[in-house]
Amino acid sequence: MPIIFTSLPAIPIIQSGDDLVSIILASLQQAGINLLDADILVLAQKIVSKAEGRLFNLAQVTSSEAAKQLAAATEKDPRLVELILRESRHVLRSRPGSIIVEHRLGFVCASAGIDHSNVQGEGEWVLLLPENPDASAQRIRAGLEEASGKRLGAMIIDSHGRAWRLGTVGVAIGLAGLPGLIDLRGQPDLFGYTLRITLIGAADELAAGASLVMGQAAEGTPVVHVRGFPYPLSDGSLQELLRPRESDLFR
Amino acid sequence: MPIIFTSLPAIPIIQSGDDLVSIILASLQQAGINLLDADILVLAQKIVSKAEGRLFNLAQVTSSEAAKQLAAATEKDPRLVELILRESRHVLRSRPGSIIVEHRLGFVCASAGIDHSNVQGEGEWVLLLPENPDASAQRIRAGLEEASGKRLGAMIIDSHGRAWRLGTVGVAIGLAGLPGLIDLRGQPDLFGYTLRITLIGAADELAAGASLVMGQAAEGTPVVHVRGFPYPLSDGSLQELLRPRESDLFR
Repeated sequence: MPIIFTSLPAIPIIQSGDDLVSIILASLQQAGINLLDADILVLAQKIVSKAEGRLFNLAQVTSSEAAKQLAAATEKDPRLVELILRESRHVLRSRPGSIIVEHRLGFVCASAGIDHSNVQGEGEWVLLLPENPDASAQRIRAGLEEASGKRLGAMIIDSHGRAWRLGTVGVAIGLAGLPGLIDLRGQPDLFGYTLRITLIGAADELAAGASLVMGQAAEGTPVVHVRGFPYPLSDGSLQELLRPRESDLFR
Repeated sequence: MPIIFTSLPAIPIIQSGDDLVSIILASLQQAGINLLDADILVLAQKIVSKAEGRLFNLAQVTSSEAAKQLAAATEKDPRLVELILRESRHVLRSRPGSIIVEHRLGFVCASAGIDHSNVQGEGEWVLLLPENPDASAQRIRAGLEEASGKRLGAMIIDSHGRAWRLGTVGVAIGLAGLPGLIDLRGQPDLFGYTLRITLIGAADELAAGASLVMGQAAEGTPVVHVRGFPYPLSDGSLQELLRPRESDLFR
């Protein structure tokens, strides 16, 4: 069975307080898509963060000494660095132009996922990630399930840079109603050997595919409908996808 | 426009010397898929490696002193470690059960991508990655283009583990006729700001989506047809996707 990723049309510029469930339902209707059991909706973090009012005005941020020092070393705005530090557990690496942190949510990313672009308004506004993306995904999923009567998944994704390879890829930062990992441990291969690959990052593979149709430029389409996810839906969470620090050779 | 990933049916167990182009054409016909301009075929490295005869018998491998030492430290077969070292530029990290290397092709991966599973035959056979996956992709692309008269892309993927996150994801290890990266540098966002994300790992996002439909277990389907890749096809290569060592904070 194929997997089909469809970017939804006519998603307006999202403002704080907007009801994403209603907006997605209207867009699905416009696209002529009737939700079916096991469909998944993938949302760019940006619209979830905006709807949840995660905009901060740099003019109102007071930088700590630590933020000022890191800002000087990385040639960044000390107020932005202050927010990065507030959103992070600790800094893994830094150099001019780049601060790689372990986010308070547990994943590793640049600048704590704080976003300058596609943020509208007077002043110097930046956008922080949702407070709890798993919970955000669950709310959106519950709303869509209630409206459709179908069993659905919902996922919030961001674009992350990577060690070793160039180019960002979409990754899951919050999920509800679908598995993060698929565990094949113990299953035999075609010839009865043990499989080399035993844990598939299924949610992240889905995130990458959805990211591909979202685009990142002016024409970005921040919601993607997915039909044909090849694994049974089950209750997953971001936590599954996080490699425990003690088993990570690259911290 | 949607992206559609379709795993192709009835791909037989591949043997050394098999003609993958003919096999893919027959499978496309059986699936009722007529190739169109800008379609992309994604192949699991395993079938390309097998077709190219990249099977090695551990019984015929003599281990060096270095391989024996690393094998003892990582609790692996010294003959397998010998092959890993031969296929690698250097070892980044090792610990019991795990050897992370910079492969001779330039990417970072575990065990130099050498595979025990789904390898048939007497003795202790293992499968090495293709000699030159870009060239393999180009041969397959050229064959499919000649047969169809269409402008196509072809990509060879493998499943890689990652720093910081659990679960493997599909990544490109060879490509022909499609871009590795999409460069958005200098493009404005919706409100005229500079984009935060400027280099999209498009080939790797495509690889992850294709990997999702391939599966890894006994029912694996090693060829995926993709329609709707959202960027213009152009000549890409693995090299684009490799982060230069000197700009990598995580070596």
